[in-house]
Amino acid sequence: MSRFFSEKYEGLSPYVPGEQPRGGRKFVKLNTNESPFPPSPKAVAAGIEAVNGLNLYSDPSCIELRRKASDVFGVGADNITCANGSDEVLNFAFSAFCDCGTPAVFPDVTYGFYPVFAAQNRVPFKEIPLKEDFSVDVERMAAEKGTLFIANPNAPTGVALSLEAIRFLLESDASRMVVVDEAYVDFGAESAVGLVGKYENLLVTQTFSKSRSMAGARLGFGFAQERVIADIETLRNSVNPYNVNSVTQAMGAGALEDEAYTRENCLVIEKNRDELSAYLKRRGFLLTDSKANFVFAAHPKIGGVGFYLKLRERGILVRHFGRPERIVDYNRITVGSREQTDVFEKAVDGILEEIL
Amino acid sequence: MSRFFSEKYEGLSPYVPGEQPRGGRKFVKLNTNESPFPPSPKAVAAGIEAVNGLNLYSDPSCIELRRKASDVFGVGADNITCANGSDEVLNFAFSAFCDCGTPAVFPDVTYGFYPVFAAQNRVPFKEIPLKEDFSVDVERMAAEKGTLFIANPNAPTGVALSLEAIRFLLESDASRMVVVDEAYVDFGAESAVGLVGKYENLLVTQTFSKSRSMAGARLGFGFAQERVIADIETLRNSVNPYNVNSVTQAMGAGALEDEAYTRENCLVIEKNRDELSAYLKRRGFLLTDSKANFVFAAHPKIGGVGFYLKLRERGILVRHFGRPERIVDYNRITVGSREQTDVFEKAVDGILEEIL
Repeated sequence: MSRFFSEKYEGLSPYVPGEQPRGGRKFVKLNTNESPFPPSPKAVAAGIEAVNGLNLYSDPSCIELRRKASDVFGVGADNITCANGSDEVLNFAFSAFCDCGTPAVFPDVTYGFYPVFAAQNRVPFKEIPLKEDFSVDVERMAAEKGTLFIANPNAPTGVALSLEAIRFLLESDASRMVVVDEAYVDFGAESAVGLVGKYENLLVTQTFSKSRSMAGARLGFGFAQERVIADIETLRNSVNPYNVNSVTQAMGAGALEDEAYTRENCLVIEKNRDELSAYLKRRGFLLTDSKANFVFAAHPKIGGVGFYLKLRERGILVRHFGRPERIVDYNRITVGSREQTDVFEKAVDGILEEIL
Repeated sequence: MSRFFSEKYEGLSPYVPGEQPRGGRKFVKLNTNESPFPPSPKAVAAGIEAVNGLNLYSDPSCIELRRKASDVFGVGADNITCANGSDEVLNFAFSAFCDCGTPAVFPDVTYGFYPVFAAQNRVPFKEIPLKEDFSVDVERMAAEKGTLFIANPNAPTGVALSLEAIRFLLESDASRMVVVDEAYVDFGAESAVGLVGKYENLLVTQTFSKSRSMAGARLGFGFAQERVIADIETLRNSVNPYNVNSVTQAMGAGALEDEAYTRENCLVIEKNRDELSAYLKRRGFLLTDSKANFVFAAHPKIGGVGFYLKLRERGILVRHFGRPERIVDYNRITVGSREQTDVFEKAVDGILEEIL
């Protein structure tokens, strides 16, 4: 820290993303929930075409991309904001819809960036413990005052809420915003985008990093009623109106022209997840009921850190979270291709043989 | 505005970027200071290669790109932060180095985003009038308390400060930051990057949008001592650690391998600027001494808005600023290719013939 850094950020502790190994040893990367499949050929072709024209600024309104998204998601183009990953929309939501009188409220076990967004925006936040079975405590969330942030499915547990539960939260207090973070929704959960027309207090975020294989392109969406979108646009245009670059806009539109490709990849991941879950259960692991492209697993006889390290020795990266205490025995394992899963299962067999 | 929008943003008025016409009529675009040349072939090749691997996240540390930049700019990789355009570094600087006790200080005529960055970050700011000749009032800036923001060359005037003046500002008060925004430095001004080792209170920002023809890719740098960079990294990693996507990182590294291309393009622009300036002077325009890739011009017999509109009728976009009052007779005209300049000059001849 320099002596010029504003005191207002004292103690700000940044988010630590999953390890991105560069060069050196090759890992089987099951730690950041990326897709094992390349982006759609339509996205790739559109991206390559865009690369030459980069001397001109990108369209700050992302209008072509929003029009395409409007067709696919069944909402108006004015109900969509585009961002440099859904993280950016989420950060804007913490800025726009929370302040000292309106805390952010989210589960104690959820996306680890939420407390950082709150701290960076200097807004208070409250963490509501998940229930014993790792499901979101909808009743307790509903009883809180403040803006609710719900990852659905939740991370790192993968447990999904029904649309009925989302509706219950929306109706629990119509004077507060409910932000539903659907980063992992395409692998088996129900999306709330269809509720946007009905609920003024709903903001849904989605990302192209998972189901659409574009983590490295950085693209996310926010869906809401026009006035809520206008608030986010006010912030976006006061920070970085060119937040989504031209290649990413073109690739996003290309990806949306190929929903069959996305659908097909998601089905493969869901199948691999179910097979991987069955395998882990057979080996004695405890598992949450994940509807995401990862599983969350603990073995009664191996500590979470130990399992993480033993996998790492074998060239496999998964994600371990050191807090809160109740999840330290777990690891989050990305569901990749069948080949990746095979390597993982073989490594687990080796570890279990060694230990048990 | 929705009823959920935090009161803290009441009255926040976003930045309005220059018009980006889409579809319909084709304009000669001299309004946003883009390069008329495509990105370097090395940047293009690197970008195309990166497009296929986008299912994986980008490197949040941008290490390859920073290493390349370290070679080119002659500072350590730890003296560099990478961002989604230099706007993003500037916004972080307003967050990090200003607060209620440390106002932002900048000229009254400068990059129009500065007051917006200040407002969005809810920090006070003070505008110091340019001198009569549109040069920065270095003595008055030096006498102010707070964090100084200096565009060098300044926008929209194009007038540059000497390194001696920058040093004077740095030494005027070693307890405050001086941010030097060098978006346009490559067209004839002197860069302060070489001063980073000596002055702890210096942050220099640069962009790839102008001299490196990558406006649509969104890439900017900040250069400073390690501890200042660490402050910005703390904010970056608390907002969006993946702010620079993989294609842009690859293209940025490619562009830095081709400094000869950048140099050559800058020389063409400087030559075109000098020719355009001479032409405008012959036609009776008042001009600032621009060291940027634009000229700032007023005609004693045509109002600034009228001239802007007449050019627009003829299919040419330039940038007119409605405030402050003392620049309303001026327009900022991007220096493009010789072909674009020819079209512009022909149109100006037509307008003058019509009016005078």
